[in-house]
Amino acid sequence: MFEMKRIRLEIRSETDRSYDILVGRGILDSLHSEIHRLGSFSSFGLVTDEVVRPLVAEPLQNQLQSNSIDTTLIALPPGESAKTIGTVLDLCQQLLSQGFDRRSLLLAIGGGVVGDITGFAAAIYMRGIPYIQVPTTLLAQVDSSLGGKTGVDLPSGKNLLGAFHQPRLVLSDLDVLTSLSSDARRDGFAEVIKAALIEDPELFSILENEGADLLDTSNPLLETIIAKACAVKCRVVNRDERESGLRRILNFGHTLGHALEAATNYNITHGHAVAAGMAVAIRFSQRWAGLTKDAADRALALIRNLGLPTELPGDIHSESLLSALEKDKKIQAGICHFVLIANIGQAVIHSLPVEELQRRLEEEVSL
Amino acid sequence: MFEMKRIRLEIRSETDRSYDILVGRGILDSLHSEIHRLGSFSSFGLVTDEVVRPLVAEPLQNQLQSNSIDTTLIALPPGESAKTIGTVLDLCQQLLSQGFDRRSLLLAIGGGVVGDITGFAAAIYMRGIPYIQVPTTLLAQVDSSLGGKTGVDLPSGKNLLGAFHQPRLVLSDLDVLTSLSSDARRDGFAEVIKAALIEDPELFSILENEGADLLDTSNPLLETIIAKACAVKCRVVNRDERESGLRRILNFGHTLGHALEAATNYNITHGHAVAAGMAVAIRFSQRWAGLTKDAADRALALIRNLGLPTELPGDIHSESLLSALEKDKKIQAGICHFVLIANIGQAVIHSLPVEELQRRLEEEVSL
Repeated sequence: MFEMKRIRLEIRSETDRSYDILVGRGILDSLHSEIHRLGSFSSFGLVTDEVVRPLVAEPLQNQLQSNSIDTTLIALPPGESAKTIGTVLDLCQQLLSQGFDRRSLLLAIGGGVVGDITGFAAAIYMRGIPYIQVPTTLLAQVDSSLGGKTGVDLPSGKNLLGAFHQPRLVLSDLDVLTSLSSDARRDGFAEVIKAALIEDPELFSILENEGADLLDTSNPLLETIIAKACAVKCRVVNRDERESGLRRILNFGHTLGHALEAATNYNITHGHAVAAGMAVAIRFSQRWAGLTKDAADRALALIRNLGLPTELPGDIHSESLLSALEKDKKIQAGICHFVLIANIGQAVIHSLPVEELQRRLEEEVSL
Repeated sequence: MFEMKRIRLEIRSETDRSYDILVGRGILDSLHSEIHRLGSFSSFGLVTDEVVRPLVAEPLQNQLQSNSIDTTLIALPPGESAKTIGTVLDLCQQLLSQGFDRRSLLLAIGGGVVGDITGFAAAIYMRGIPYIQVPTTLLAQVDSSLGGKTGVDLPSGKNLLGAFHQPRLVLSDLDVLTSLSSDARRDGFAEVIKAALIEDPELFSILENEGADLLDTSNPLLETIIAKACAVKCRVVNRDERESGLRRILNFGHTLGHALEAATNYNITHGHAVAAGMAVAIRFSQRWAGLTKDAADRALALIRNLGLPTELPGDIHSESLLSALEKDKKIQAGICHFVLIANIGQAVIHSLPVEELQRRLEEEVSL
């Protein structure tokens, strides 16, 4: 054998990347003091899109300015089609020309796309700078702004480039939701319902009691509900930041939901796709995870009451779903790992042979 | 005031990203068994450049193949000019078309540029996949392959986009160094000398005793020397992975070295620039850090004995160095933080007013 020296580079850090999630009404007004709590920064970038810019970003810029925080506002083109590496690189180039350095702070003011792009730019600009999430959609407030997943799409698939980069703060002001269409609000509730079904029976009860009244943005329980949905995600992410195991339960309804999005070429909203995916997963849970008929009916009724679908779109074929699952690596070695629920608030992982899955999907598409 | 709920997302992980650095002769032959030690992977990508490809990467591919590890070989264009985000994206696109997924392993076979590009691609492909460094230059073996700094250049500056992404293993085979030019070997010694000066007096003694004999790649002490230089970097990185404080001592000779590279438009090798930067820092250390004349002379003699410069190039102006330092944010609020040495093996940080620095640089350029 050959002689060899083995040196160990020890990187065994106890890192604390914990951060606060603030949920309330009118709390954007306190952003400046929250920024001061985080430390001192050399410059500030408000990243938004052209739609959110006049509604939230510009008023926020003025408010920060009157509290002695000068910001540079950068508006991205709106929509999912902007979620490309080109947009991230343009953003980095603008930061560079504005003199942003390692001690600069970015603020993502917008929905999931703005958050993903800003977070990814913050992850790679000068090997990582801090950022804050200010989500302006319900979906972003309860889901995408939390947990540090950032990324962009490639022509061949979603989120293929990205990084785990935790924000330093998430500030969710319910007042900005009033500008959302009722469709967009409904959509956000898919993730709220998911949080309840996988981990929080109490949240489920509140949702069940309120029903469609929740779509009124002045509903006083909304703050509690959003906070509880956030708390579910926090608990799961805390136990498994990098999705090696437990974090997968956040995929409840998403395995099929993503397949549905791909199979329809994204001509379905994320919330609708997740709702339909959850409905299928609820019926699967009755069959394989011991979910009672009563619980399944209650779960499906809640989805319906919030104006979301409980069936797959009529024009979808089981083959296109299966091939999307395969392409997405959700089916491996003939097995598909599905998140199911054994009870309301209790997720389990179930391994499903692909033949069985195919048979059941054929039943679902003919519903 | 407004009502607000504050939820804490706790991410307080005890992460262990430690890894082995293997140094020896002929040890590339054991790479397959090292890979097996690390775990099981779905596919393997050997990333190299067109120069290293026939010399190291193709033989390695054959050797791995004969040990049942099938690899995909991807060759990048050679040279620093390839260190762009475009090269990283091309690489990611190739990984995608080859079906690489989250459980794929990349191996960077080459010098610093290949390591930086491969490491950065591994950092962002599907939000991070594992990679191994197989550095083929002395410079990469003792410095750039260690510590997880990855990145690419932008037209306006070096390493402006990147990530901290630690490799799973670094394998440095001394046998591959024989194919290097003696210039390239000399260049690598700049980082070895740096390691000795900032942290390892024993390494300094070995270097001093051997002198120019070290440029012979068959020198039996080379293995010890490379291992010791690696160990210095490991100890520093261990104490400060993200360069918040201590890791800055690795910048000994580099503050001015980088300025020199920029001021000459990179018409100087990294090793030569660092050597000249160290020589200036040694003279500064005599003046401000209490380094004795004897120690300074010994340090300068070692640099010379290894064929490296101890003076700034004749055609350089102090203004161009100062403006490069300013652009690089090394001068802030009129102060430049310089790494100096109080003794051989003992680095200290010294704050230098810019006027003083200017005066001393004018002396240096007229040397």
